[in-house]
Amino acid sequence: MTEEATAFVPGHVTGFFSAHPHEDPTRAGSRGAGLTLTDGVEVTVRPAAESTVVLDGEGIDIEPVETVLSTLAVDARVEAHSELPLGAGFGVSGAMALGTALATNRVFDRKLSVNELVTIAHGAEVRAGTGLGDVVAQARGGIPIRLEPGAPAHNELDGIPSRARVEYVSFGGLSTADVLSGETERLTAAGERALSLVVEEPTLASFVHASRRFAREADLLTPAVRETLEAVADVGGHASMAMLGDTVFALGTGLSEAGYEPAVCGTHSAGATLR
Amino acid sequence: MTEEATAFVPGHVTGFFSAHPHEDPTRAGSRGAGLTLTDGVEVTVRPAAESTVVLDGEGIDIEPVETVLSTLAVDARVEAHSELPLGAGFGVSGAMALGTALATNRVFDRKLSVNELVTIAHGAEVRAGTGLGDVVAQARGGIPIRLEPGAPAHNELDGIPSRARVEYVSFGGLSTADVLSGETERLTAAGERALSLVVEEPTLASFVHASRRFAREADLLTPAVRETLEAVADVGGHASMAMLGDTVFALGTGLSEAGYEPAVCGTHSAGATLR
Repeated sequence: MTEEATAFVPGHVTGFFSAHPHEDPTRAGSRGAGLTLTDGVEVTVRPAAESTVVLDGEGIDIEPVETVLSTLAVDARVEAHSELPLGAGFGVSGAMALGTALATNRVFDRKLSVNELVTIAHGAEVRAGTGLGDVVAQARGGIPIRLEPGAPAHNELDGIPSRARVEYVSFGGLSTADVLSGETERLTAAGERALSLVVEEPTLASFVHASRRFAREADLLTPAVRETLEAVADVGGHASMAMLGDTVFALGTGLSEAGYEPAVCGTHSAGATLR
Repeated sequence: MTEEATAFVPGHVTGFFSAHPHEDPTRAGSRGAGLTLTDGVEVTVRPAAESTVVLDGEGIDIEPVETVLSTLAVDARVEAHSELPLGAGFGVSGAMALGTALATNRVFDRKLSVNELVTIAHGAEVRAGTGLGDVVAQARGGIPIRLEPGAPAHNELDGIPSRARVEYVSFGGLSTADVLSGETERLTAAGERALSLVVEEPTLASFVHASRRFAREADLLTPAVRETLEAVADVGGHASMAMLGDTVFALGTGLSEAGYEPAVCGTHSAGATLR
C-alpha cells in the first residue's frame, strides 16, 4: 500500500445528449457529445480510519464518491481540487468519482483494469442520478461522441478529430438529478437528432451547431444562457450551453469578443490519468 | 483546405501478442499489451502535386502511408520526424499511417471521425503486413490491453491504470512482415497465455513478467536481447523485448542500472492527436 495517489480528471461539457435509463447501471447512460477540458479535477486519496471527502478545502457529501469507496471496500480521505464549479455542467461529480476510483486502486493496490475502474465510477454516477455520460467521456479525453450508452463493456465511443481553445462563463447551477428525474422524452428526441448531425459530420462546427439546436429544442435554455448565446452569435462566435448547467461554453474567442470575461482552457487530449 | 496540419503519434512497444489474421482487414489484428511512449512520431501533411513521404529528411516508401493517402484520395507531401528508429519494434510505421490519416483529414477537410481514421490506418498496416495492433494502441494511449483484435468497430480495448518511466536500447531491426508471414501458431499460443496473466492482474509488474515469458516461449529472443535481459535481471530490474524489434525496454531505471546508456521516455497518457 502506497501512502497516497493523485489522479487528474479533465472536465467535460456535454453539448447534447439523450438519456437511456436501464435497471443495470452498466447499461444505463447517455448518447451525446461533448468537450473534455484541460481544466479539471485533481483527486488525492489516502488511507484513513473513516472516509471523508473534501473539495477545495471543505468537507462535502458526494454520493458517487462514497459509492466508489465502498465498492472498492476502503476507508479513505479523498481530497479534491477543482478548477471548475460543481453542479454547473462540467462533470465535476463524475471527475471526482473517476479520480477516486483511479487513485484508490493505486493506493490500496486493488489490481483493477482501467475499464473496471471506469465501470465502478460510471455505475456510481448513474445510481446517484448525478450524471449519465461524463465518466466514460472523461476516461477517454478529446472530444468524445457517445454512440451507445453505458459502461465500457456495453458502450460505443467515437471522437471528433480536432482540438480547440475553449472559453466558458457560468451563471450558477442546474440540478442534473432534477432534470433527469423529470420528463425526458422531448429532450431525448432532440438529443438523437443532434447526434445524427454530428455522426454525419464529425467536426467542431457541426458539434456546436447541433448543441445549440438541442438546447433550444429541449427547452433547457436559462435566461442568462439565452442572452449570452445571442451576444456571442452577434459577434459571429460559436457557443452553446453546457448540459446541465447555467453555463455557456464557446470555441476560440467567442465569449471574450462578445465582451464577457470568460475562463479560458482547451480541449484535453488525454483521458483521466494518475499523476 | 488549410495549408498544412501536424499530428503527433506516440510510439508503442508491444510486450506480447497473438496474431489474428482475417480476410477483412477491419477484423484482422492482434491481441496483446504494450506501452505507448512519449517518444513518438510527428507527421506533417501538405497538399502536393504528387505524393511523397519523407522520414527525418530522407525520401522513403512506406506502404501503409501510401495506402492511407490513396484511401483518402489525396496527393500530399508527408513529412515525418521520429524520435524512434523504424523497424525496431516501436510502431513507427503505424504511427506514420495514423498521423497521416489525422493530418490529411484536417488539411483536406475530409470530415471523418476518429474511429474512421483509425480504421483506415489500421487497415493499411494490416494489408502491408507491417503491424497488427500498433495503430489501435497508438490511438488510445496509456498502457493498452488489446482484448479483441481489429479496428474500432470490432476490437475491444482495456488498459493498465498506471504510468512509468521507460528506458530502451535498440540493437537493430527485425522484419515484422517476415515474422508474421511465418509460422505463428506457437507465438499465438504463447501470446494468449500472456494475455490471460495480464487480464487476471492488470499491473505493470505482471505486464513485464508476461512479456518476458512470451519472448522466451515464442522463441523470439535475439542474442543481444537475451544478454541485455539477463544483465537487467541481475540488477533486479524489469525489462523485456519490444515485439518485433531487436530492442529491449525496461521500466524505471532497469537498463541504466545495468550499465547501458538507454534512451529515456515515459508512458504517454494520450492517444494520437493533432498538434
